[in-house]
Amino acid sequence: MRLLDDRVPGAEMALRELYPDTGHAITIGITGNPGSGKSTLTNRMIAHYRAQGLTVGVVAVDPSSPYSGGAILGDRIRMMDHATDPGVFIHSLATRGQLGGLSRSTDDVVHIMDAMGFDRVLIETVGVGQDEVDIVKTAQTSCVVLVPGLGDDIQAIKAGILEIADIFVVNKSDREGALRTAADLKALQHLLAEQQWNAPIIKTVATTNTGISELADAIDMHGEFLQTSGQLTSNLEGREAHLLRNLLNDRIGQRLDHVLKKDGLGDELVARMAARTLDPYTAADTVLKELLVTDTDG
Amino acid sequence: MRLLDDRVPGAEMALRELYPDTGHAITIGITGNPGSGKSTLTNRMIAHYRAQGLTVGVVAVDPSSPYSGGAILGDRIRMMDHATDPGVFIHSLATRGQLGGLSRSTDDVVHIMDAMGFDRVLIETVGVGQDEVDIVKTAQTSCVVLVPGLGDDIQAIKAGILEIADIFVVNKSDREGALRTAADLKALQHLLAEQQWNAPIIKTVATTNTGISELADAIDMHGEFLQTSGQLTSNLEGREAHLLRNLLNDRIGQRLDHVLKKDGLGDELVARMAARTLDPYTAADTVLKELLVTDTDG
Repeated sequence: MRLLDDRVPGAEMALRELYPDTGHAITIGITGNPGSGKSTLTNRMIAHYRAQGLTVGVVAVDPSSPYSGGAILGDRIRMMDHATDPGVFIHSLATRGQLGGLSRSTDDVVHIMDAMGFDRVLIETVGVGQDEVDIVKTAQTSCVVLVPGLGDDIQAIKAGILEIADIFVVNKSDREGALRTAADLKALQHLLAEQQWNAPIIKTVATTNTGISELADAIDMHGEFLQTSGQLTSNLEGREAHLLRNLLNDRIGQRLDHVLKKDGLGDELVARMAARTLDPYTAADTVLKELLVTDTDG
Repeated sequence: MRLLDDRVPGAEMALRELYPDTGHAITIGITGNPGSGKSTLTNRMIAHYRAQGLTVGVVAVDPSSPYSGGAILGDRIRMMDHATDPGVFIHSLATRGQLGGLSRSTDDVVHIMDAMGFDRVLIETVGVGQDEVDIVKTAQTSCVVLVPGLGDDIQAIKAGILEIADIFVVNKSDREGALRTAADLKALQHLLAEQQWNAPIIKTVATTNTGISELADAIDMHGEFLQTSGQLTSNLEGREAHLLRNLLNDRIGQRLDHVLKKDGLGDELVARMAARTLDPYTAADTVLKELLVTDTDG
């Protein structure tokens, strides 16, 4: 895992080897606002799966912390109940600069855990930004965690995260306003419903271990639905296509960034465009020509 | 304009020539749900600016209609009061396949109108999807049009369009629920407020020409704010950088699509990845190698 963190070519080499062994783990995305109790919920879900004899990998993703955040998140996670259980593997990821890079790193870690033979891989995000949405929707089943009260929901709605929910979780559902939140979700359910699956609303109180087995059941039901409807296969191919495109965009984007930064080319072109001494098409041609030269080099 | 519609190389050639003459028009984005009365509002704003002796270009953008929609929109627009006024130029755009292509076409039309000497260019979108958000936020001042009632607002919130608002317009504000909508916006204003500009909430009833001059005043005030704060320059450079990146992504994306579709390469690679007989890194290498060959060809 250290190799992966450091993003040296060796990690990629290992993943090239591991890929044939992947595709067995069931991946579960868990997203929601900070303060919605996702960590406690994840902790309880680990315990639930472990009690069933299943092994669990956890990827905790924090796109909002480019530098030190990953370590803080890691510490938080390591304090969890399962840190010494060999049937549980926990890894945290923070942003490492490149747009789309975190999404790629998450894919990589999930594939490694999958190849290592973990039965379930939980992908937990810290917040609900666009990056998190992109990451969580690559899971087989996406759980969106909300808590009673409008303020938090607005953040989730703003990020468009409700639309990717296969399951809505109303955590801290012993709090005031839980019924209202569930009613709001019912209205949204109606707006968002697509095809045959109608995302269920599961009420939990993670701190008291309430509703966890219902949540696990809902995840299983969603898995069965995907299988019987044939969406499991089509979703898999969709995810692979998404992964390939992601990887391509990532690599091309890196080369593009390199070309734009080299000798301040990008800044120079933009300044000339702003001064109207250069048109955008000629500017783009210049960059594309440079990109080809870079590509040929390596 | 026909050249631009058909996307022949000649249109690009013309734009290469025209670019030095652009940068004078004030661009105003107008977005909101279908039914929010954007067209009537746009119509009234044209009249307002014409009464001040200003010339007005209008770009009506409809990403939801890949085929016939553009024409329907065009008809709708042509029925407007100003179709025969030589000081008004109206052009409609619908999706033409490529992702990001519509955004580029909109940029192109805005630049042409700008070069033609129009004082104001209004960019009106039909809906509030992600494409519309990307298009409208390239305008100097973005107006988000809402109507009283929660249903419509959720669509706007879902699309993340409230975040790009420089001005909120509550149209049909003579309707029940207008006060509530304004109050909701005030709460959002607080959540969304950035830097020094606090997006004002302007109440209009476009059908009775109410609030139009207040809206125009707010647009002017936003322009003055941009100038005095120095954001006009930084925004311009930001827009140019965005335009360049857009153009590059568009061109590279087109080449990538071409490579992936050629001989079914993309489908074949994805099928092999799904079958776990090919890892995504090797697949990406294959595509990148092909992309280089294509690039060298032309």
